[in-house]
Amino acid sequence: MSGEDAPAQQQNAVDQKQETKPAEEPKTETESPPAAGAAEAAATPAATTEKVPEEEAFTYRALVLTGYGGYDKVKLQVKKGKPVLKAGEIMVRVKACGLNFADLMARQGLYDRLPSPPVTPGMECSGVVEAVGEEVTDRKVGDKVMVLSRFGLWQEVAVVPAAHTFLIPDGMSFEDAAALPVNYITAYMMLFDFGNLRPNQSVLVHAAAGGVGIAATQLCKTVKDVTVFGTASATKHETISEGGVTHPIDYRTKDYVEEVRKISPKGLDIVLDPLGGSDTHKAYNLLKPMGKLITYGTSNMLAGQKKNLLAVAKNWYHQFSIHTLSLIQGNKSVCGFHLGYLDGEMELISQAMDIVLDLYKQGKIKPRIDSTWHLEQVGDAMRKMQERNNIGKVVLTTEPMPEEEKKEEPKKEDKKEDKKKDDKKKDDKKKDDAKKEEKKDDKKKEEPKKEEKKEEEKKEEPKKEEK
Amino acid sequence: MSGEDAPAQQQNAVDQKQETKPAEEPKTETESPPAAGAAEAAATPAATTEKVPEEEAFTYRALVLTGYGGYDKVKLQVKKGKPVLKAGEIMVRVKACGLNFADLMARQGLYDRLPSPPVTPGMECSGVVEAVGEEVTDRKVGDKVMVLSRFGLWQEVAVVPAAHTFLIPDGMSFEDAAALPVNYITAYMMLFDFGNLRPNQSVLVHAAAGGVGIAATQLCKTVKDVTVFGTASATKHETISEGGVTHPIDYRTKDYVEEVRKISPKGLDIVLDPLGGSDTHKAYNLLKPMGKLITYGTSNMLAGQKKNLLAVAKNWYHQFSIHTLSLIQGNKSVCGFHLGYLDGEMELISQAMDIVLDLYKQGKIKPRIDSTWHLEQVGDAMRKMQERNNIGKVVLTTEPMPEEEKKEEPKKEDKKEDKKKDDKKKDDKKKDDAKKEEKKDDKKKEEPKKEEKKEEEKKEEPKKEEK
Repeated sequence: MSGEDAPAQQQNAVDQKQETKPAEEPKTETESPPAAGAAEAAATPAATTEKVPEEEAFTYRALVLTGYGGYDKVKLQVKKGKPVLKAGEIMVRVKACGLNFADLMARQGLYDRLPSPPVTPGMECSGVVEAVGEEVTDRKVGDKVMVLSRFGLWQEVAVVPAAHTFLIPDGMSFEDAAALPVNYITAYMMLFDFGNLRPNQSVLVHAAAGGVGIAATQLCKTVKDVTVFGTASATKHETISEGGVTHPIDYRTKDYVEEVRKISPKGLDIVLDPLGGSDTHKAYNLLKPMGKLITYGTSNMLAGQKKNLLAVAKNWYHQFSIHTLSLIQGNKSVCGFHLGYLDGEMELISQAMDIVLDLYKQGKIKPRIDSTWHLEQVGDAMRKMQERNNIGKVVLTTEPMPEEEKKEEPKKEDKKEDKKKDDKKKDDKKKDDAKKEEKKDDKKKEEPKKEEKKEEEKKEEPKKEEK
Repeated sequence: MSGEDAPAQQQNAVDQKQETKPAEEPKTETESPPAAGAAEAAATPAATTEKVPEEEAFTYRALVLTGYGGYDKVKLQVKKGKPVLKAGEIMVRVKACGLNFADLMARQGLYDRLPSPPVTPGMECSGVVEAVGEEVTDRKVGDKVMVLSRFGLWQEVAVVPAAHTFLIPDGMSFEDAAALPVNYITAYMMLFDFGNLRPNQSVLVHAAAGGVGIAATQLCKTVKDVTVFGTASATKHETISEGGVTHPIDYRTKDYVEEVRKISPKGLDIVLDPLGGSDTHKAYNLLKPMGKLITYGTSNMLAGQKKNLLAVAKNWYHQFSIHTLSLIQGNKSVCGFHLGYLDGEMELISQAMDIVLDLYKQGKIKPRIDSTWHLEQVGDAMRKMQERNNIGKVVLTTEPMPEEEKKEEPKKEDKKEDKKKDDKKKDDKKKDDAKKEEKKDDKKKEEPKKEEKKEEEKKEEPKKEEK
């Protein structure tokens, strides 16, 4: 997002102060647990040692990708030193952060918009303006804002250009505000800029229970008589149907191409394709004349916790490539979209955001939060998303994690066992040290149960609103 | 256009009756000149011989592509026998026909939507309904209509599905009506369906003085503050500027990519590309983020009168092909459009036509006729278009050619000489019998001067309306 390199500089400056250790693989076990404690320490001046100039006393917790690999590569650390604001920048006290597929790709080294580790990931967050740089006229201390950036937002304090922030409308929670920007701007620009969605058209939404999928479904319903085909595993069908999907398709047990053709023999007006590889070919073939294929990811590359070279190679091998003569003879359109590459296009993005926020105020759209996790739980949060166990957005909160939650580990053993089994099934093909890593993960696993339960209770509500 | 094969059947039925000669290369010289006479004979029952049942006495002049090649391959012939209408069809007494680039491609065997010769080309015409088949409820004898079809309209009588016709608005001439459908529907669907053109955007229109170019420019001007870059040779700049092109570029003396970048360093929102080959690459590179490349032809393949294998090969070699990952990283869209391949999509086409006709009635668009030619002059008409000497639409009229015009040949010798030189320059690389053919062409060349002059006088008017 950020054409400017503000988050990068903040990152670098702070890392230099903080890190004398090698960037590669710092002592993981020891670092993550004390982090929460360190944050508390930050609030207690007594904990800061030696020379304590005001600038140095300023500390904040930050998630840091320390190297490419599994979930454990994102570690909670403490950064020191108050960031210095340049003209046009603001400092935000972050309240909640959104997880996106690009973050998962980035962790595996598959996303080139993230600088090399160590680096703080995170493309979106919500928070409160804590300081304002020179030349900033439209933001003031205390404003509640959403933030978009190329990276660098999974931390308690983020410095960003004011132009990359949007005021949070009255009544919107920090969680919703962290869940909204990437998914809704992506869905909006795909459907209404490239897709030019109009009444009576038909749309295929893959991963319809994911963040973009739910946003796209809601946005489709703002246009008269749009038919939404949505793929998701069967357990999610009720929820996505209530959310607006006309025809849910269980892609795990059925051939979605056949299912679509049964209902719409001529094909579709728009296909949103986050999968890549051979699914892009299928999408293209499903298009009607004047149809638009909008591809916005290669999530098929993600197989397992760490980079799966076979999956990556397969995706490249099957990568869709199209000749113009075929496009002409088919009267078709192929578009590529990724918000992370829309550098410096804040004007376009702001236009889309204005419309999205307007729809929110009218009650026509509302982010659906799958679950909220503490920074300490980022590994589990990522796992939930990567294993497609979420319905809606996975969100991080910067609220300190209550001590009692940290001690509840044994309660979850049964669940962890299930997860382990799942992991093994998926990673069977992999010959590397996945098992060792999972064990490490388990040790660090914290208690997300509460959030999940909360969410289950909440589920009924948003459904109604989505109608 | 025609999903149904009505024109094909008409063609076949009539050809079978009429032709015992080989389809390949019938005695050209002898056939074309007597054709006009034959048409008159049709009006005079005395001229019809032997058995004269009413059906057989029905004759009409038709242009027929007798084989692939130069301008002389399209011959004026007489078809006999009254076509029988199927349910849903109407018979149209054709008044005027539009020429399109696809017709030129077809003559060289480069357009696969035309059946093998002998066949009557022609994708659009205007005329009067002369008979109505069963189940036709929305057309009646005497209605003035525009017609769209895959082929088969360059003749005095055409049988088409009623659904492929559009009522001509009051006050629109048959010439305008023949000039409008293909160019304006093409430009409209490209700019507003695939292109999603919005205020303040920028568009590159190649061949801005051509039929689609002028239509696209006029349609761009219906949207607020759209900047139009238009390529055309310098002599046409004044006209296209008055027609709405903001920045005319002489592609013969300047690099249009550089010229665009000088004015719009970030690039363009939409590029309409009728050229193909390496120009499609340039178009893609000129796109801004969220930009749309809409390619709708391969006119670069047309070099010279007959199929130029080198040009065809070059075009194929340089044919643009794009990987989805590049599209994603560029946030770009590549679309292909060709009305000739929109088989059976009359609903989509009608929607576009309704809007186009509405704009016409509001005075916001108006076809610009470059010149009108008699059926006997189709070779010269094609030449004018192929050599890019037109500004606007080249139209054929079915009006009989006055005898005095036919005798005025010597007057044009000077002009013909110029043309010959031009042809030689262009065809230098070709080793075939082009010269022999040109001579043949010259012999048959009739008098288009009158039309051209008429057009020059008319030029001032449409310009004012276009503003």
